[in-house]
Amino acid sequence: MREVAILGIGQTPIAEQWEKSLRHLAGEAALSALADAGVDAAALEALYVGNMLSGPLNGQENLGSLIADWIGARGIEAAKIEAACGSGAAAFRAGAMAIAAGAADLVCVVGVEKMTETGGPSTTSSLASAADADWEAAMGLSFVAINALVMQRYLHEFGWKHSDFAGFSINAHANAVHNPNARLHEAITFKDYSRARMVAEPINLLDASPIGDGAAAIILCPAERVHSNGRPKITVAGSASAIDSIAVHDRHDPLTLAAAQKSAQVAYKQANVGPNDIDVFELHDAFSIMAALSLEACGFAERGQGVRWALEEKIGPKGQLPIATRGGLKARGHPVGATGVYQLVEVIQQLRGEAGATQVADAQIGMAQNIGGSGATILTHILRRS
Amino acid sequence: MREVAILGIGQTPIAEQWEKSLRHLAGEAALSALADAGVDAAALEALYVGNMLSGPLNGQENLGSLIADWIGARGIEAAKIEAACGSGAAAFRAGAMAIAAGAADLVCVVGVEKMTETGGPSTTSSLASAADADWEAAMGLSFVAINALVMQRYLHEFGWKHSDFAGFSINAHANAVHNPNARLHEAITFKDYSRARMVAEPINLLDASPIGDGAAAIILCPAERVHSNGRPKITVAGSASAIDSIAVHDRHDPLTLAAAQKSAQVAYKQANVGPNDIDVFELHDAFSIMAALSLEACGFAERGQGVRWALEEKIGPKGQLPIATRGGLKARGHPVGATGVYQLVEVIQQLRGEAGATQVADAQIGMAQNIGGSGATILTHILRRS
Repeated sequence: MREVAILGIGQTPIAEQWEKSLRHLAGEAALSALADAGVDAAALEALYVGNMLSGPLNGQENLGSLIADWIGARGIEAAKIEAACGSGAAAFRAGAMAIAAGAADLVCVVGVEKMTETGGPSTTSSLASAADADWEAAMGLSFVAINALVMQRYLHEFGWKHSDFAGFSINAHANAVHNPNARLHEAITFKDYSRARMVAEPINLLDASPIGDGAAAIILCPAERVHSNGRPKITVAGSASAIDSIAVHDRHDPLTLAAAQKSAQVAYKQANVGPNDIDVFELHDAFSIMAALSLEACGFAERGQGVRWALEEKIGPKGQLPIATRGGLKARGHPVGATGVYQLVEVIQQLRGEAGATQVADAQIGMAQNIGGSGATILTHILRRS
Repeated sequence: MREVAILGIGQTPIAEQWEKSLRHLAGEAALSALADAGVDAAALEALYVGNMLSGPLNGQENLGSLIADWIGARGIEAAKIEAACGSGAAAFRAGAMAIAAGAADLVCVVGVEKMTETGGPSTTSSLASAADADWEAAMGLSFVAINALVMQRYLHEFGWKHSDFAGFSINAHANAVHNPNARLHEAITFKDYSRARMVAEPINLLDASPIGDGAAAIILCPAERVHSNGRPKITVAGSASAIDSIAVHDRHDPLTLAAAQKSAQVAYKQANVGPNDIDVFELHDAFSIMAALSLEACGFAERGQGVRWALEEKIGPKGQLPIATRGGLKARGHPVGATGVYQLVEVIQQLRGEAGATQVADAQIGMAQNIGGSGATILTHILRRS
């Protein structure tokens, strides 16, 4: 397999973008990434789209053809990859695989979701399709309700208080203030967190990530084709994907993200690193409970102890393990099928030293973990600056 | 890149399968393919699902996790690939890529669609999401209407009569009689074809393929791992995918399937063969006009002359170019995201000599072409028996 390198990145702000259609959003991110890479769309050989909800929400499938043609790459290979909220990283992995296999030398990966202006079913019921339609959604469980049950069990099992999670959301909001593409630009306090209105007990509004419209894109090529242009060379050191049961109640342990453990272990091994080597970690904090579970699954904490990272305030850009450095899902926003690409773009910004006020000093190894469903499909990527 | 071989195949009948859910259908095909391959689900390393409409029609996404876990392969990599009606072949290509790249040694590809029992929007409006939502579907064009405009133009441009296309449907129906998994088991006559009720002029009921519920699956492995077990060794000699504009009106020529030309040319080159070497061709006859256009794009006929193959009755199992040998989309049925995998399974049956009454004598090289949208995303695969 050939080594895969990053050639360019692009992103749109995450917002209610009523004036832009799905293709406009995706095109803006892809063309921005192409400009960043210094290559023309006509030179692309393949495009992989990460998206979850374009069918029910936008009445549009066949996004590979739609977007590749829109950016001026008619004739190339293209397809959409879906793994619920993990679609973005799944598309990135498909792109990396095409380069690694030698099937293409220049690939665009674009994650896109348009969620706030829809003519079809409600966004909440569409999001429930990430869960088990027959055994979770059909019982009336929304996606936030499933996560609320998991958080409730965590509090019960390990004796934490809801307010112990505050640090995750406070950190994410603080970092998002400095990210022009973030959905929310308001710093929050412990008091704000504690008093936020309830969504699904114990998850309150400041535990939950906001949806939004947005797109992010990455241009990939074989590492041997990257010539020094003053920028650090960034390569894909680890890439892995694993599934668990789609329904939480089918798991051996509802409080362990087994697919995160599996994909992180494989990625660590590929990259020949361990948790202590990770300089920056963009994790999937769709709900604050998921941040704690991810930290545990990836070997940063023992079972039931992930929340300590938030309590001990070690997750800021200058902390021991910077997470959600551009705002995370919680405040940068969570345009579901695009999120995994945003996470990777943000890790690349950190490794390039382009993360501004929330730059992690001398970041060399970054990790991104993207979760589809309540732990059902989990992808872990490790990128390295050389 | 490693050479990719076929280890097993499986399929369900295409029908109104109200007693089986999406996971039951997919599981039945996948487990049947595993049994055919003589391997256990626990040995799988990755699963790729071809599906288009599970979101809007079944309220279920995250099919990779759903199906991999259901068949007993928890922990492996899995994702869904979508390219409208071309999703099945796109999933097959993702699986072949994973083997070729060395990322996996045993992969299951499953195409599945459940279309006849749905609680959401109508199947017709969901199918329109294969077209351009903003510039075709929004104008009231259903998917069959788009194809009707193309067929009308073809008749006008080249001077053919509607009844000249009868041979495509007669051949497909005649072959499906012998395929136990086909949706329709009725032979039809020229008179039946000529008198069929109109759907969207000039497309009548016997020009159009029926939808259905069904799943098909293929197990893939590296060619060097296939040991002779009395069966012929079948390898993937060519695999290519290309896109055109999603909207027909954006094409340079609405009567040329440019993405079929491109992907066929690439696949021919990879396999080092030409049209004359193809012993059996499973083409995408969702509407009879598409059979003619595919034959032209793949080099079997000049522009405007593809319909001659039907007129001259050279497309039967004993003809010069056997097509739709198990019924094609027209009569085997068209469970959209599963269709591409059915086509490949049928080519494999032909190369194995397992096609029964419609067996093509001594078939050694088979081709399958799967179309997403009205020519927007087209995948061509060439398989070889050695």
